[in-house]
Amino acid sequence: MRTTLMNNAYLVRKLGAFVALSETELASLEALHKRRRVFTVGRDLVHQGQSEHTAYVLASGWACSYKILHDGQRQIIDFQIPGDFLGLRSVLLHMSDHSIEPITDIEVSEFLVSDLMEAFTQTPRLAMAILWAASRDEAMVVEHLADIGRRSAAERMAHFLLELGARLALVGLGSKKGYACPLTQYLLADALGLTAIHVNRVLRQLRESGLVTFRDGYVTFDAYDRLTEFAEFDPTYLDQVGPMLS
Amino acid sequence: MRTTLMNNAYLVRKLGAFVALSETELASLEALHKRRRVFTVGRDLVHQGQSEHTAYVLASGWACSYKILHDGQRQIIDFQIPGDFLGLRSVLLHMSDHSIEPITDIEVSEFLVSDLMEAFTQTPRLAMAILWAASRDEAMVVEHLADIGRRSAAERMAHFLLELGARLALVGLGSKKGYACPLTQYLLADALGLTAIHVNRVLRQLRESGLVTFRDGYVTFDAYDRLTEFAEFDPTYLDQVGPMLS
Repeated sequence: MRTTLMNNAYLVRKLGAFVALSETELASLEALHKRRRVFTVGRDLVHQGQSEHTAYVLASGWACSYKILHDGQRQIIDFQIPGDFLGLRSVLLHMSDHSIEPITDIEVSEFLVSDLMEAFTQTPRLAMAILWAASRDEAMVVEHLADIGRRSAAERMAHFLLELGARLALVGLGSKKGYACPLTQYLLADALGLTAIHVNRVLRQLRESGLVTFRDGYVTFDAYDRLTEFAEFDPTYLDQVGPMLS
Repeated sequence: MRTTLMNNAYLVRKLGAFVALSETELASLEALHKRRRVFTVGRDLVHQGQSEHTAYVLASGWACSYKILHDGQRQIIDFQIPGDFLGLRSVLLHMSDHSIEPITDIEVSEFLVSDLMEAFTQTPRLAMAILWAASRDEAMVVEHLADIGRRSAAERMAHFLLELGARLALVGLGSKKGYACPLTQYLLADALGLTAIHVNRVLRQLRESGLVTFRDGYVTFDAYDRLTEFAEFDPTYLDQVGPMLS
């Protein structure tokens, strides 16, 4: 039992912020993702426009969801970390509205709409928890939408690094000291609407101000509180204050 | 029975794009929103930062969801039309990340997290349908995020008027000819990141090109196909092709 639970430890930990799952609910969650798969860097696991109804839970590694725009440019919508759903939104739509690419080699558990329905039938609280996770994902996109173009490049970067830190802390992969981060400057650029050169300049500026250092695959918060103030980061929308459903 | 069903006719029609609901499921949906309330123009029914867990289904009228940004500016996230959920995302978060304001006098059905749980317990297919509606709402926000700043003001306006038309057509309140629309130029400005003067200019430009006319509370598509082409409007993300679950 212990080993099986380890398989979705991150997801359980994340959903725990919303609901304290019972043994039965944990078993339903376990049954949801039984098909384990591995994808290598750069091989898309979901394609914009595809009509297969498969979604995944990320067990290890990092991924990103993106859209190719009409002009051929790529807009990264969000990054996914262990415990996150991949393609949860598109599993219910006839056609996926985005693509998902692994940023590192990743391990995922695959599920189908029918598996989701089965889990919902067994436990409505799990359905609520999954709707909560979807709501939180949407709150993040809304936060990005509301703030795009209203923050300076440095504030946007600071806000982004803090948001990622809070998400990683929720699943035990980060703290106020910092976190391991496999993102390249190109990925940061596509997510924040900047050029790679601009990303480089902004990261240097934040480092030289003694706020945060991103170097050799590690983000170090040099002055967490000052950085939070600088970015006006208010993590309320991440909803990490503890279980709402007892 | 006929009268009660009339109460959520728009929601039933909308969810029908995803699932053909049975009599039992319709009854669960009916039970979900039993508390009928009326709100007048300009009186917020959800406040950013509130921690009451109430959500609504819009039965008649129009509303908008918005965020007040740190600099005091207002960003409209989306407009809601009959059959849409109001505050579905925030009902599961500890604190609402946005406010909702009626644009016209509106009639809503109120529900609590406990009502939602009750409905989920009775019918998992309804849970799936509600998750679908949430997925579709998120897909719209993602579409807006991906396109902000990439389209010209005229293209953005054209895309917006077409999206609204497709959503209204799904619930029987619009067609390829046009639709009644209570939005002011100020509301359009706050949604599209333009000034009211700019909105005015862009609407004139679209009208003079013979594409679309927005006048006296009515949007008329003068040349639907040409407008679609101009805006590069691909309605796939609205997922309106017909029931996926039989």
